[in-house]
Amino acid sequence: MSDLSAQPLDGDPAARVLVAGASGFTGALAAQIVWHHPKLELVAATSRSDAGKRLDRLYPRYRVPVELTELDLDDIPDVEAAIVAYPHGAAAPTDAALRAQGIVVVDLSADFRLRDRDIYERWYGAHGAPDLFGTGVYGLTELYREQLRGAQLCATPGCYPTAANLAIRPLIAAQIADRSRGIVCDAKSGVSGAGRKASLQTSFCEVTANFSAYGLMEHRHVPEILQNSGLGEREFTFTAHLLPIDRGILETIYVRTQRVERPLDLLAIYEEYYADEPLVRLYAPGRVPDLRAVQRTNFCDIGFVFDPESQRAVIVAAEDNLGKGAAGQAVQNMNLVLGLPETQALL
Amino acid sequence: MSDLSAQPLDGDPAARVLVAGASGFTGALAAQIVWHHPKLELVAATSRSDAGKRLDRLYPRYRVPVELTELDLDDIPDVEAAIVAYPHGAAAPTDAALRAQGIVVVDLSADFRLRDRDIYERWYGAHGAPDLFGTGVYGLTELYREQLRGAQLCATPGCYPTAANLAIRPLIAAQIADRSRGIVCDAKSGVSGAGRKASLQTSFCEVTANFSAYGLMEHRHVPEILQNSGLGEREFTFTAHLLPIDRGILETIYVRTQRVERPLDLLAIYEEYYADEPLVRLYAPGRVPDLRAVQRTNFCDIGFVFDPESQRAVIVAAEDNLGKGAAGQAVQNMNLVLGLPETQALL
Amino acid sequence: MSDLSAQPLDGDPAARVLVAGASGFTGALAAQIVWHHPKLELVAATSRSDAGKRLDRLYPRYRVPVELTELDLDDIPDVEAAIVAYPHGAAAPTDAALRAQGIVVVDLSADFRLRDRDIYERWYGAHGAPDLFGTGVYGLTELYREQLRGAQLCATPGCYPTAANLAIRPLIAAQIADRSRGIVCDAKSGVSGAGRKASLQTSFCEVTANFSAYGLMEHRHVPEILQNSGLGEREFTFTAHLLPIDRGILETIYVRTQRVERPLDLLAIYEEYYADEPLVRLYAPGRVPDLRAVQRTNFCDIGFVFDPESQRAVIVAAEDNLGKGAAGQAVQNMNLVLGLPETQALL
Amino acid sequence: MSDLSAQPLDGDPAARVLVAGASGFTGALAAQIVWHHPKLELVAATSRSDAGKRLDRLYPRYRVPVELTELDLDDIPDVEAAIVAYPHGAAAPTDAALRAQGIVVVDLSADFRLRDRDIYERWYGAHGAPDLFGTGVYGLTELYREQLRGAQLCATPGCYPTAANLAIRPLIAAQIADRSRGIVCDAKSGVSGAGRKASLQTSFCEVTANFSAYGLMEHRHVPEILQNSGLGEREFTFTAHLLPIDRGILETIYVRTQRVERPLDLLAIYEEYYADEPLVRLYAPGRVPDLRAVQRTNFCDIGFVFDPESQRAVIVAAEDNLGKGAAGQAVQNMNLVLGLPETQALL
Repeated sequence: MSDLSAQPLDGDPAARVLVAGASGFTGALAAQIVWHHPKLELVAATSRSDAGKRLDRLYPRYRVPVELTELDLDDIPDVEAAIVAYPHGAAAPTDAALRAQGIVVVDLSADFRLRDRDIYERWYGAHGAPDLFGTGVYGLTELYREQLRGAQLCATPGCYPTAANLAIRPLIAAQIADRSRGIVCDAKSGVSGAGRKASLQTSFCEVTANFSAYGLMEHRHVPEILQNSGLGEREFTFTAHLLPIDRGILETIYVRTQRVERPLDLLAIYEEYYADEPLVRLYAPGRVPDLRAVQRTNFCDIGFVFDPESQRAVIVAAEDNLGKGAAGQAVQNMNLVLGLPETQALL
Repeated sequence: MSDLSAQPLDGDPAARVLVAGASGFTGALAAQIVWHHPKLELVAATSRSDAGKRLDRLYPRYRVPVELTELDLDDIPDVEAAIVAYPHGAAAPTDAALRAQGIVVVDLSADFRLRDRDIYERWYGAHGAPDLFGTGVYGLTELYREQLRGAQLCATPGCYPTAANLAIRPLIAAQIADRSRGIVCDAKSGVSGAGRKASLQTSFCEVTANFSAYGLMEHRHVPEILQNSGLGEREFTFTAHLLPIDRGILETIYVRTQRVERPLDLLAIYEEYYADEPLVRLYAPGRVPDLRAVQRTNFCDIGFVFDPESQRAVIVAAEDNLGKGAAGQAVQNMNLVLGLPETQALL
Repeated sequence: MSDLSAQPLDGDPAARVLVAGASGFTGALAAQIVWHHPKLELVAATSRSDAGKRLDRLYPRYRVPVELTELDLDDIPDVEAAIVAYPHGAAAPTDAALRAQGIVVVDLSADFRLRDRDIYERWYGAHGAPDLFGTGVYGLTELYREQLRGAQLCATPGCYPTAANLAIRPLIAAQIADRSRGIVCDAKSGVSGAGRKASLQTSFCEVTANFSAYGLMEHRHVPEILQNSGLGEREFTFTAHLLPIDRGILETIYVRTQRVERPLDLLAIYEEYYADEPLVRLYAPGRVPDLRAVQRTNFCDIGFVFDPESQRAVIVAAEDNLGKGAAGQAVQNMNLVLGLPETQALL
Repeated sequence: MSDLSAQPLDGDPAARVLVAGASGFTGALAAQIVWHHPKLELVAATSRSDAGKRLDRLYPRYRVPVELTELDLDDIPDVEAAIVAYPHGAAAPTDAALRAQGIVVVDLSADFRLRDRDIYERWYGAHGAPDLFGTGVYGLTELYREQLRGAQLCATPGCYPTAANLAIRPLIAAQIADRSRGIVCDAKSGVSGAGRKASLQTSFCEVTANFSAYGLMEHRHVPEILQNSGLGEREFTFTAHLLPIDRGILETIYVRTQRVERPLDLLAIYEEYYADEPLVRLYAPGRVPDLRAVQRTNFCDIGFVFDPESQRAVIVAAEDNLGKGAAGQAVQNMNLVLGLPETQALL
């Protein structure tokens, strides 16, 4: 892996980093960001299925000239930090082994996102490292920044929950959502959210020129949204849809408010909540983001239309599901944990 | 236009038909259906912008070997029925001229859909034939079949309202929608819904790989939905979205019900309402249509997921915006008016 | 499979038909055409992988309300004719078993297309029914119609060779191609040409917004093109490309001619060759087909631009790879074999 | 335009830069690259049609927070260099006015690419600044680097000619192309190559799921390819095709060689020609680039398959039509003219 020497670092790295599961969509993007990060040294990028291949053959555009290796948990590379992009279930034992070596872990799976073990098991089955269950810090950076600073095990949120909670939480916190009327989140995602594994459902001929709803009232990201928004199960209705595009999530969220007089007052609530947040962009009332605004970025954009008379707000939140919705946020948290500028390599 | 002689009619036609505005998406499809209809003779297909061109050069797939002509209202072809596919505003005076000749008119514009003239003018400006305002029969066939049988001027519904009202009306009629909680319709449409005229908004580079919301809380199809569903303005929230595909509308509708015990009870409400309807297809509870099921058909498909405990129903309605959402329904109504089998040439 | 009784036949069927491999793209389309064919009765549609499912669940648009069954070669349904849509290798033994029962077989695989067994084995491996090797009639209808009339085993051509040979063969036959200068065929295909099986190469995220060349100078359809065009290996260069679309093949073919004076003379050669052919459409010189003209049809469209001074001809041939390039042509041949009108159910 | 002060420059800029025509696809990308260039100060971005709008509203992803202004040729901003992204015809007089102020001009139109005025006029009509005709240096950097160093007026090549000449020229220079057999270039481009102006031809519904050939034997980029490759008119056949994607050009080029013994010998010819070229990437024999490898980059990638026996070479060249094919190469040349590192802001 001599090519690793070519990484364009700026002086001594702040940490040596391992990316596990680097042949999947989120892992590969994480490896790409780390590779181009001036203060993180990419020591190894691993993949069970594609070990021996070069990452820039699988993802030419990312231009990471690194040979994928297999991760041997009995012979873990000498690193200070790791990003683990494994499927749920498989991630937990790997995280545990890395933690046992004192390595800071930023996990991209669902394994450490939930605090209620019954709920975890209902959606994901048996947990792979029960002793560690619940010890992760939930990595929605804007909401949990202080806890994340000292985190040793960070659970990167799911792609849908990131946008949903960034859009909903300020309204809950300001107590202006009329929760009794229910909140609806109609979410649409590009296909990369389903991962790289070949399947009939994500084959070109199934998806192209098509559009479909799935996971109606039983999507496994819902418990994660509830846990972090404070909403109860009956107060929140979520539908996922599959867009015939590669990347991006757009969520249209319907909320009845109370005591909001003007659109600018609603904007003020968001502005206060996200004052100085570098990766959340707010739009003037009446304007909403489209996917193009956020694809291949690490931003979450939020806009809304508000009708004071009926107190109806329609909020649109958009992000790149692999960026702010996964790998971008993983690096944002790693920056935070390591004391680096939070958006380094992300803008 | 000697090629017209080649139309494959089955015996004497029931009516001679004119299609006005046949170079646009809905007009061209209407001409295509009429051409292949065994009992309707396509006497003329007209177009201001493309007169002199053959329709099968503009739309090779439709295989209608007819030269487009210009419509001269002082010299209207000898027909018994007409489909008018003009933009709103321009349609009304043409409809009036045709009606003055005793020609049955099926209009595809918004000009005769609304009953409240203030509302019409707010959304569409001055009406082009005020004397006729309000005299059209609203052509949502399944809801107004009896009135349509004797109609001389039929107003084909908008694409969004067709699916929305087919999905919502049975719940209102059965009085099981909790209207106080509000109904949300999150609608997604293919680009052909915007018409054929070149514009930056519908150019390939703007739309491809993108997804965007538009018309938030101010879409001109909303008054049409309210008028025919019985819902009040504050009870119904509608958002349109632009899908990066050619054809199809899918609407995800959120309703709180009351007094519905089981999913099958909700299905029973739909089944009763649409008993023997040939162009509405209902799905078993838990299954919902995707766009592929309805593209290039004249069906509207409806499915839902229902949670009895919280009385939440998520209903998905899908149709081809040019088929059941426009030209298909226009011919369905023309069949009805002329006493032909309602689905002739539509299945 | 009681629903089969609902097939809309016109009087007594001319033949009872089995479609084997009906869950793949070509088999499903073949079943769809047979189902809507007024003189062919679809007795069974079989599928190893999807037996027990209804075909209209896999392909709602085709509207074939038939339950897929498993084909038991020891208990073959009572049919007179079969379309076999299996992968190469697997097709031959099935064809043999069906032939042993006296059933007319129209095969969609490569197993009976080639006449040279060495060439077959080089590209496809061991043959599954060596005794029958070479006994099929090549089913490029326009070229081999007379032989096909009496065929018991018909080998439907590959999708690329159909368009290529329809475009090239008239020039070879008229001896106006300067073969010493070489003929280039630059072919572009939609993804359905690769079949329905899930694979990374045909996953949505790989294909969308991408375009790639493959099979450069080693595509297995080349021997088939050579065999039926009369060209030698060094006289013909073929490149396949994958388009980010579902259906359609467009081939751009470069030929140096000799002794052709005017574009109309070149057209005359095609017109004579394809006089009265219902499924080959010729364009006036200077006009060429696009994919839209042929998608979801059974036509092959051919147009060209010709420069008399340099004797360069650029020919564009387009077809639907599943239609004229596969299932459509299979039914065309079955019609022929059974003495039915050749284009019945195909226009 | 106070926001311009926010441009992230690295010390004193090497030049103050104007981008004229910054609302079109190439101009906007040029403005984006200049904005993010550490040594070029973006003093003004101008647009006739969109003056007054902010560039980051038209192109959110580019994140250039600059208000578009109108260019007044009587009051030209104080700059040392300009990129002009006007249509042909309109570009020349603007270039002349800028040159009259001593401003270095990198032009993106066709106005200064050709050396033969008859040929220019045949394809583009009357020239807008006849005195300057022929005074531009052709900006295919890899071929004309030395002349470009001192250029005051640089003519950025067309998108198709850039890839074509980069692929062909080394073979001509090495005298291993058998020109008597003719060279075929089958080119496929994304829609952005047609510019941003709304038109029916580039509307979403025309292009999506479609594929078409155009400009057969009469594309205006051909004279540019001939002029810079040394090929004669009858030695080179070019066909353009429109891909249903946004960005990228892929050209499949067919050449008969002479005296080339092995694939590696052909590679050696390219390697020698492009030794140390930072923006041309060569592939090992048998591998060819796809569009994904080059989209949103400034590279031109070249790969090939070669058959020594028949001396047939199939070469695939790919680039981003807006990157190396337009704006990227414009900045590459500006870097060169201004004595900056040639790839600064381009990797």
